[in-house]
Amino acid sequence: MINLYTWRTPNGRKISIALEEFGLPYTVFPIDISKNEQFAPDFLNISPNNKIPAIVDEEAGNLSVFESGAILIYLAEKTGKFLPASGAARYKVLEWLNWQVGGMGPMFGQFGHFTVYAPEKIPYAVERYTGEVRRLLGVLDKRLSDAAYVGGDDYSIADMAIFPWLAGLTTGYKAEALLDGFNYVQAYIDKIAARPAVGRGMLVPQV
Amino acid sequence: MINLYTWRTPNGRKISIALEEFGLPYTVFPIDISKNEQFAPDFLNISPNNKIPAIVDEEAGNLSVFESGAILIYLAEKTGKFLPASGAARYKVLEWLNWQVGGMGPMFGQFGHFTVYAPEKIPYAVERYTGEVRRLLGVLDKRLSDAAYVGGDDYSIADMAIFPWLAGLTTGYKAEALLDGFNYVQAYIDKIAARPAVGRGMLVPQV
Ligand SMILES: N[C@@H](CCC(=O)N[C@@H](CS)C(=O)NCC(=O)O)C(=O)O
Ligand SMILES: N[C@@H](CCC(=O)N[C@@H](CS)C(=O)NCC(=O)O)C(=O)O
Repeated sequence: MINLYTWRTPNGRKISIALEEFGLPYTVFPIDISKNEQFAPDFLNISPNNKIPAIVDEEAGNLSVFESGAILIYLAEKTGKFLPASGAARYKVLEWLNWQVGGMGPMFGQFGHFTVYAPEKIPYAVERYTGEVRRLLGVLDKRLSDAAYVGGDDYSIADMAIFPWLAGLTTGYKAEALLDGFNYVQAYIDKIAARPAVGRGMLVPQV
Repeated sequence: MINLYTWRTPNGRKISIALEEFGLPYTVFPIDISKNEQFAPDFLNISPNNKIPAIVDEEAGNLSVFESGAILIYLAEKTGKFLPASGAARYKVLEWLNWQVGGMGPMFGQFGHFTVYAPEKIPYAVERYTGEVRRLLGVLDKRLSDAAYVGGDDYSIADMAIFPWLAGLTTGYKAEALLDGFNYVQAYIDKIAARPAVGRGMLVPQV
């Protein structure tokens, strides 16, 4: 059994989507970050960076893994699915996974912080991160004009990382208007959202 | 031969350090991001997110890879070095590599933007990212109090990703004072800096 430590956020949902797609049984442990549960010593032993998501794989001697990108690679290599084992196709998936983890995720996160959560509205920061979200959506749109999925012909862990952040833009951040004109991205959102495993993963954790 | 597209920045230097450590021959193509060379169509074909670093591996049918995290994994898997092929040790390296790519890199980058490059000093943003740099250094310090290298007993691609950003804190951002009290991080900087391959990699590109 895999233990999943998560919360209702895009980074958390990457992993519940993945576990559903891989068909791996898992137990959900909600970590309420609005109550600072990510700072509890037991959780920090698993996730020393005080962030969800994290997993513990009981079948693998209680191996713990934190960081969504590392968890996705771990699950793909455990099951042999959704990440080619070698060749160009493998590194196309890994480059777009890293693009999500190192660019889209942090920049969408700063956008959310300065447009939704920050106590003061700071025009410079709002403009900076709105511009960056638009730029990133443009990069993704162009990629999806050439490829069925972000990594190429096949659905992969890179799509599992990207989708919840696109969904979060329209729900959590109420910034659906930023998607205007990015028709490939819009069609992609609909295509990924229609996957039953994605639908189930997006409902985790239920608390 | 591997073609490396890079500039004098921490993300670029991750890869010149790695190529030196792996002992792989490479040709450097400087992309001067201060002159917007990252937007040239030929470069965008390789790196559609308009960022350095990127590589093209002529031996692998001109496979191109962008995103520093993906390039590091590619080079490690090409050579069989600095990333264990399986088991817990592999995922410890990948989790800290992802911590660098998804957290340390972007947050140190925002810190640099708001303390050094932004045209106006915005106290809220300066405080936000200074706090985050301190928090991340604390997480790293704690890890290094338990482990010789960030991934565990052995030097790995995760150290290659982290080191240039620690070096950039003291040089580019002139924020050496933030390292005060993080004694394990300070000793780690000295240990990694003493590696001849790291010394050579930090000098790339020479223009
Ligand atoms: N790079 C990390 C980011 C994870 C992350 O930002 N998690 C947030 C929720 S989406 C969190 O746990 N925040 C709590 C905190 O930072 O204290 C990953 O991809 O796993
Ligand atoms: N997540 C990327 C970040 C790369 C990055 O931020 N590159 C910067 C220089 S350190 C760049 O090329 N900036 C030019 C631009 O954004 O236009 C990676 O790790 O490779």
